[in-house]
Amino acid sequence: MGLIGGSLGIDLRESGHQIYGISRSPETCETALERGVVDHASTEFEILSATEVVFVCTPIFAIASTIKQILPYLDPETIITDVGSVKQPIVSECSQLWSNFIGGHPMAGTSESGIDAALANLFKGAAYVFTPTAANKLEHVEKLKAIALELNAIPYVCDPQIHDRAVSWISHLPVMVSTSLITACLQEKPDTLKLAQILASSGFRDTSRVGGGNPELGVMMAKYNRTELLRSLYSYRDNLDTIINLIEEEKWQDLGNVLQSNGKSRPKFLN
Amino acid sequence: MGLIGGSLGIDLRESGHQIYGISRSPETCETALERGVVDHASTEFEILSATEVVFVCTPIFAIASTIKQILPYLDPETIITDVGSVKQPIVSECSQLWSNFIGGHPMAGTSESGIDAALANLFKGAAYVFTPTAANKLEHVEKLKAIALELNAIPYVCDPQIHDRAVSWISHLPVMVSTSLITACLQEKPDTLKLAQILASSGFRDTSRVGGGNPELGVMMAKYNRTELLRSLYSYRDNLDTIINLIEEEKWQDLGNVLQSNGKSRPKFLN
Repeated sequence: MGLIGGSLGIDLRESGHQIYGISRSPETCETALERGVVDHASTEFEILSATEVVFVCTPIFAIASTIKQILPYLDPETIITDVGSVKQPIVSECSQLWSNFIGGHPMAGTSESGIDAALANLFKGAAYVFTPTAANKLEHVEKLKAIALELNAIPYVCDPQIHDRAVSWISHLPVMVSTSLITACLQEKPDTLKLAQILASSGFRDTSRVGGGNPELGVMMAKYNRTELLRSLYSYRDNLDTIINLIEEEKWQDLGNVLQSNGKSRPKFLN
Repeated sequence: MGLIGGSLGIDLRESGHQIYGISRSPETCETALERGVVDHASTEFEILSATEVVFVCTPIFAIASTIKQILPYLDPETIITDVGSVKQPIVSECSQLWSNFIGGHPMAGTSESGIDAALANLFKGAAYVFTPTAANKLEHVEKLKAIALELNAIPYVCDPQIHDRAVSWISHLPVMVSTSLITACLQEKPDTLKLAQILASSGFRDTSRVGGGNPELGVMMAKYNRTELLRSLYSYRDNLDTIINLIEEEKWQDLGNVLQSNGKSRPKFLN
């Protein structure tokens, strides 16, 4: 019951569902009940026996171990889903643990975390991706899509690997591109660096933002989506080399064409 | 008399200076007078004989040719300054044309252009860099710094090359880093690309912003600041390679250290 779990609770309770919340911390359970995030809260897994769908909202590294702990308490028809930002390794491990596991990724968040950060309408208008396998029941996928619609999110269904490839391009690659910009600048001599820091404005601020973000999250992306991230980093490096070559060879018309074409294509990434 | 020239006129006229504006377009002269941007406006250079300081606010490629055209009309003590975002090539060429030329770069702007985009207080709180050479008179540099203070800008004085090196890091390099991200993504297969475009959110939006901006401006940066931009691009590529190597070798602790250190250093670039 942190930012994501808590926000799911608020909206789904509002839709009329009975919400059961689990936390290791009794204080979080108390806060969740006080804020009306859940109907029932406990540090014990027993209350999960009443559930039809379980959302595991832990960090990526704890998803499989959490499922192992809760599965003795679940009805065999219960669907387990997660909210991790990488899907292939999670789906591959958790499907072995529970046949009714379906990977999920709601594309919403804030820079805050914890139960106090939980919000109503966090998922409104956001994409919510589900990554079922051939082993999953179609009715279970439909049930999760219906829940996404109750959250006013937009459900998408795709292969776990396609999900990981897509988020590598638009989320994980930008972090590495952006952090390399900060590292490179910091290697300048002190006097020039100081002037650069004085002169930096919105262009630097925006391009460096995700590279200066949560380090744990950055490492998780790289660790769990390593293959796809490396694939997109290699392609990025090739494209950077092309830009460098155009500048080296003073091919200004070609450089202008690349910049113009990118300016025209960028709006397709902005919703 | 576009965004920058017009905005200089508005603020300096407010400070009590007599402002003389030149434009090739009679309509711009009319608008400038109507909006109170200038006291006198003309398409002819003769009116410049009354001026103590001339701000050349053309695009970079037209600065030297503009100075050649106006200099027959100027008092020998008149200071000429420009507002170009690169200084070394401009200072080197224009100092030959006019001994009282001092390069300038007010670090302010909007995405708009033209006289209609001119604003009061555009320079408030912004850095205004001057790049005099040993040949310039100290009193002339002081005069320009005093004008920057009247604009409520913060004047800095540095060597033209140091200016170009600093802006390469925080302004020109980010454009190339950012545009390479867009090009790389666009090379993905259509289905995955479409999903990536659907899933893209603020991280991609911010990191790709300056790479999808004005192509003419991007080419100007590369053309006039080629040496410094290439220097910063080579350093960037080395740093990107370091990140790629850490991910290839699964050195998660080291990657976390880089991300954490960059997160701590980034605020020094944000004013």
